[in-house]
Amino acid sequence: MQTVTATAMMQKRALRWRRQGLPVALVPTMGFLHPGHLSLIERARREAGRRGLVVVSIYVNPTQFGPREDFNRYPRDLKRDLRLCRQAGADFVFAPSNAEMYAGGGSGEESSTSVVEESVTIGMEGDSRPTHFRGVATVVAKLFHLVLPTVAVFGEKDYQQAALIRRMVRDLFFPLEVLVAPTRREPDGLAMSSRNVYLSETQRREAAVLFRALERTRARVADRPVSAPKLKSQVKAFIEGTTSGRLDYAEFFDSETLRPVRMVRPGARMALAVFFGKTRLIDNGPL
Amino acid sequence: MQTVTATAMMQKRALRWRRQGLPVALVPTMGFLHPGHLSLIERARREAGRRGLVVVSIYVNPTQFGPREDFNRYPRDLKRDLRLCRQAGADFVFAPSNAEMYAGGGSGEESSTSVVEESVTIGMEGDSRPTHFRGVATVVAKLFHLVLPTVAVFGEKDYQQAALIRRMVRDLFFPLEVLVAPTRREPDGLAMSSRNVYLSETQRREAAVLFRALERTRARVADRPVSAPKLKSQVKAFIEGTTSGRLDYAEFFDSETLRPVRMVRPGARMALAVFFGKTRLIDNGPL
Repeated sequence: MQTVTATAMMQKRALRWRRQGLPVALVPTMGFLHPGHLSLIERARREAGRRGLVVVSIYVNPTQFGPREDFNRYPRDLKRDLRLCRQAGADFVFAPSNAEMYAGGGSGEESSTSVVEESVTIGMEGDSRPTHFRGVATVVAKLFHLVLPTVAVFGEKDYQQAALIRRMVRDLFFPLEVLVAPTRREPDGLAMSSRNVYLSETQRREAAVLFRALERTRARVADRPVSAPKLKSQVKAFIEGTTSGRLDYAEFFDSETLRPVRMVRPGARMALAVFFGKTRLIDNGPL
Repeated sequence: MQTVTATAMMQKRALRWRRQGLPVALVPTMGFLHPGHLSLIERARREAGRRGLVVVSIYVNPTQFGPREDFNRYPRDLKRDLRLCRQAGADFVFAPSNAEMYAGGGSGEESSTSVVEESVTIGMEGDSRPTHFRGVATVVAKLFHLVLPTVAVFGEKDYQQAALIRRMVRDLFFPLEVLVAPTRREPDGLAMSSRNVYLSETQRREAAVLFRALERTRARVADRPVSAPKLKSQVKAFIEGTTSGRLDYAEFFDSETLRPVRMVRPGARMALAVFFGKTRLIDNGPL
């Protein structure tokens, strides 16, 4: 496995792979890898096949964090990540520096171009984190041009992000396929996330409530439709009544368009975000 | 020469060219070609060489026109354009439909992703045409992904547009080179433009005033620096005193960063926009 940090070197390799007609599967990450990431890398390995290449990018992208968010304290452990990438079957790790990704080739004129999406990023994370998806779309566009993947693998835990990437690829005609792989969960149902390390022991125990809220809601709508506001207040009462968590949002929407649904039926999707202290966790699932 | 209208077919070809390692030179146009465009195609022909391919895109992009602008009456003549492309050495013409470029693969969910640039597009055309550059950046990103050029050729007449494309390519790491070719002019100095056909006989005669204003200003600053506001009022007086034209803007700026300069010296650049009736002409040049 090779590690590349320079953008020019990464793109030079990528252009060679394109000329050789090799499948290239990219897994974009912010590092501090957990089994959820590793399952994406394994999926990428299967997609790339024996001839193809699996590239994992590790980059804590500053532009997708809000000014009061956890960019500085976001957990990092490159050495451990590299070992895990190798074990999971990656061929390349691309770990660029901020200077390289946003400094405009050292011209003194910083990066001033962004990608924005204005349909699937409305609501939910887009409301709670106003500049988040602009940062995500922009950095993923950069990564796509540097790695030139034939396929890119994203996790379903960040459902709205996955929808954004699919939409961006479709709208701008990026020549690649987007795959979305299922959320990996702890035994109690908590979705795996690098941010779970922020949780205290008590919060960690309580955090399974997101998954339980999804299951309860699924059972709740199985027999007959329920209105979204009604479900939302039930979810809020359940979470805030049984744990120290504070509901940021619970939304019910069409899985394709991400438009809110008023009467929630099986087939709709639910997403929620819950604060435990300063730590914000998200989850989602089909109903 | 072949003509392609389907985006999927265009990209399939482009991916094959990439695998074959062929140079591909793209000239994006809105059609109604004039000798300025033809010189871009000839430049692309030289860049692509004998092995390489020259692709001309012809597409009147709706998103770069403002609601009160000339999208509907913009001149179109595809048959003539195809003949001129062939004569100038193009191998492919890509002439997509609106439905294809913005309809999201016919999913019913229209294109909702844009590319925005927030440094070189500030001021000048960016002020006079607020949504223009967002439309330009977005459609050019689409074209780049569909044609996958190794080099793209733009005209210097649209100086701010060329700066935007260079910046977008640099910031998002598009794997291609941007070339900017000199403005072609009529014998009296008027910059060639598809919009020149809108001019009445009198306006056409008067329109050379943009070029003359550039030349006068160049002579004016040759000896000693002059402040931008002073130059601007002289340009306005010259244009509005000698023709029926109305000055939209005259700006003086650094050729690289496009930031305004206060004291104008040789080496700075000037751009201006002038209305003749409803027709708006632009030009620019080094001082």
